[in-house]
Amino acid sequence: MRTQVAIIGGGPSGLLLSQLLHTRGIDSVVLERKTKGYVLGRIRAGVLEQGFVTLMEEAGCADRLHAEGITHDGTLVSYGDELFRVDFKEHTGTPVVIYGQTEVTRDLYEAREKSGGKIEFNVENVVIHGADTETPYVSYAVDGEARRLDCDFVAGCDGFHGVSRQTIPLDVRREYEKVYPFGWLGILSETPPVNHELIYANSPRGFALCSMRNENLSRYYIQCSLSDKPEDWTDEAFWQELKRRIPADQAAKLVTGPSIEKSIAPLRSFVTEPMRWGRLFLCGDAAHIVPPTGAKGLNTAASDIHYLYRGLREFYESASTDGIDSYSEKALARVWKAERFSWWFSSLMHRYPDQSEFDLKMQVAELEFLRSNKAAQQAMAENYVGLPY
Amino acid sequence: MRTQVAIIGGGPSGLLLSQLLHTRGIDSVVLERKTKGYVLGRIRAGVLEQGFVTLMEEAGCADRLHAEGITHDGTLVSYGDELFRVDFKEHTGTPVVIYGQTEVTRDLYEAREKSGGKIEFNVENVVIHGADTETPYVSYAVDGEARRLDCDFVAGCDGFHGVSRQTIPLDVRREYEKVYPFGWLGILSETPPVNHELIYANSPRGFALCSMRNENLSRYYIQCSLSDKPEDWTDEAFWQELKRRIPADQAAKLVTGPSIEKSIAPLRSFVTEPMRWGRLFLCGDAAHIVPPTGAKGLNTAASDIHYLYRGLREFYESASTDGIDSYSEKALARVWKAERFSWWFSSLMHRYPDQSEFDLKMQVAELEFLRSNKAAQQAMAENYVGLPY
Repeated sequence: MRTQVAIIGGGPSGLLLSQLLHTRGIDSVVLERKTKGYVLGRIRAGVLEQGFVTLMEEAGCADRLHAEGITHDGTLVSYGDELFRVDFKEHTGTPVVIYGQTEVTRDLYEAREKSGGKIEFNVENVVIHGADTETPYVSYAVDGEARRLDCDFVAGCDGFHGVSRQTIPLDVRREYEKVYPFGWLGILSETPPVNHELIYANSPRGFALCSMRNENLSRYYIQCSLSDKPEDWTDEAFWQELKRRIPADQAAKLVTGPSIEKSIAPLRSFVTEPMRWGRLFLCGDAAHIVPPTGAKGLNTAASDIHYLYRGLREFYESASTDGIDSYSEKALARVWKAERFSWWFSSLMHRYPDQSEFDLKMQVAELEFLRSNKAAQQAMAENYVGLPY
Repeated sequence: MRTQVAIIGGGPSGLLLSQLLHTRGIDSVVLERKTKGYVLGRIRAGVLEQGFVTLMEEAGCADRLHAEGITHDGTLVSYGDELFRVDFKEHTGTPVVIYGQTEVTRDLYEAREKSGGKIEFNVENVVIHGADTETPYVSYAVDGEARRLDCDFVAGCDGFHGVSRQTIPLDVRREYEKVYPFGWLGILSETPPVNHELIYANSPRGFALCSMRNENLSRYYIQCSLSDKPEDWTDEAFWQELKRRIPADQAAKLVTGPSIEKSIAPLRSFVTEPMRWGRLFLCGDAAHIVPPTGAKGLNTAASDIHYLYRGLREFYESASTDGIDSYSEKALARVWKAERFSWWFSSLMHRYPDQSEFDLKMQVAELEFLRSNKAAQQAMAENYVGLPY
């Protein structure tokens, strides 16, 4: 089989790239290790930057997002019982949109299927060959049958554990990592959100986040020990702990119910450089991970797709390699900004095992400064809604 | 002897308070452990916030400061060979004034002497008695002769190592501290400053600061090991190292010369709470220390004096204890903001022995963000010129 762009990974990044390329008549094939059902079952982020929404519009996949997405003009931040709001609209003129990653992925699958997009599921033993030549190809197997996909370019959208990054030789790539000494225990419940906006809560018992997917689907998180298991936490214990970490007036309003999903995620900052090797381009989690505080993961993947899509268009439409040649540098410049914001916001909101009394005072002083200073709120708002591409 | 306010410590805080009280007819006596010559010989900070200048005006001591002080409308920040400017005037409408602490102290001494202010030098064995009663007094000795100063209030302006803070019982006070794993090696030289504004430099070899006292008196610092001694560093070695840490175009302009002072200072963040115990009030370094990055030490002492002076005036002029009762809370609110800024700016600019490659990337990302983001510059500028009292 031959295509122009082989896309490894059928998550939102790979699908979005595939659909965007399709709108310009550029052919691609998506190779996904799992089934479509599995991909759609993954619960991930749900806060979209305007830049992401614009890409979905460009891809012709934004109708349901516009109809069902909830616009948020600000977010709430609390420490103890103090609660304040950072107004995105006032500071940037731009809101964010609440719309689950699962829904984004569903919309993209639907669009790809409507346009006859080629997606192979259940692929095994994916190997990228000749990425540093002009004739790369991908070998893989489906149901034990070996296949080969020849292509002009390979887009590695296969996440942190995927083969794409590993394809770049170790003497070429450099990795930067920070592992945080805690995890997030998250539940999904069919209950109305405690507040119509998100609440990021710093409390003496650790961080909590009140988030949502829609008006009757809430997503809550609490900072937990890395040694905890989801089964250690009954729903009742989760709700009790959450209530202790958010302001009392919010806790009093919290509607609880059975969890329909419960999981623990570790927190990691990770970047690999460069994001391009020959004809292989890394996108999203394949190249970088942010801790989820501030919801930059999916949004930063989207900015990679933005740069790569434009680079590939320039190549096919204008025979220019400028866009693909500058891909790594441009993508990384924005990645590092998102990494900084996510690291800063995580550092501000969590309790760390080795924090001194002075460190705790610095957290409170920074929260007080953020509460009272318009410039600090503006800097946060600009990052939260997404820095310009 | 009897006075209204006994002031322990004849540095700029104590003198400023004494002179301000004098303008309202409130009597004070200043007790200083050293000689006037010793106090005037101490080389300290030289960047004054507008709030400090206003207090000097209120004290009637601002004539020479206005004549000789150099107005700075911004500052320069560098990392490697990248140099950018944060414009205070644009972001806050307010400049800072370059005028050495030594000069401030000299002006205050002159004013106190002109007004017949009572200052005792070379005092020994200072003990504060009955601070938690309505009849406090201070005992001390001069030339081996025991003396006693009865008073209404005691202002503890005697620095980090003074007796004032130690007078507050340990079960009442709480202390917060961070010790930084490096020092600042500073020299003073009779050479023109390398730039007409300050340069705060982050370099792979560590922090450097190009500062000044006037057009022919430069003050330079380099981050050094805590085990270094000033005599380990020849002038030549200092200049060589400084040149390696600032942008090449600045290094090329640097005029070097013999040092007329050379010393190493450790960096510390420290706060004691509360800042009032009965009729004893702690001011400046007696209550808090900041690392010198951002020059908040003297300026934060001045904000304490501002609140205490107003409190004492209210007491004597309106028989109200509101001002002195809220002193600790108000002073500390501003102290913690200055602590946060100094900690943030120190963390951003220095190399730490335990920094990971990821941490170094976060420094660069934060410097890039500061370079490119107006809101981040505004937040820094507002802190640098001094948050409102």
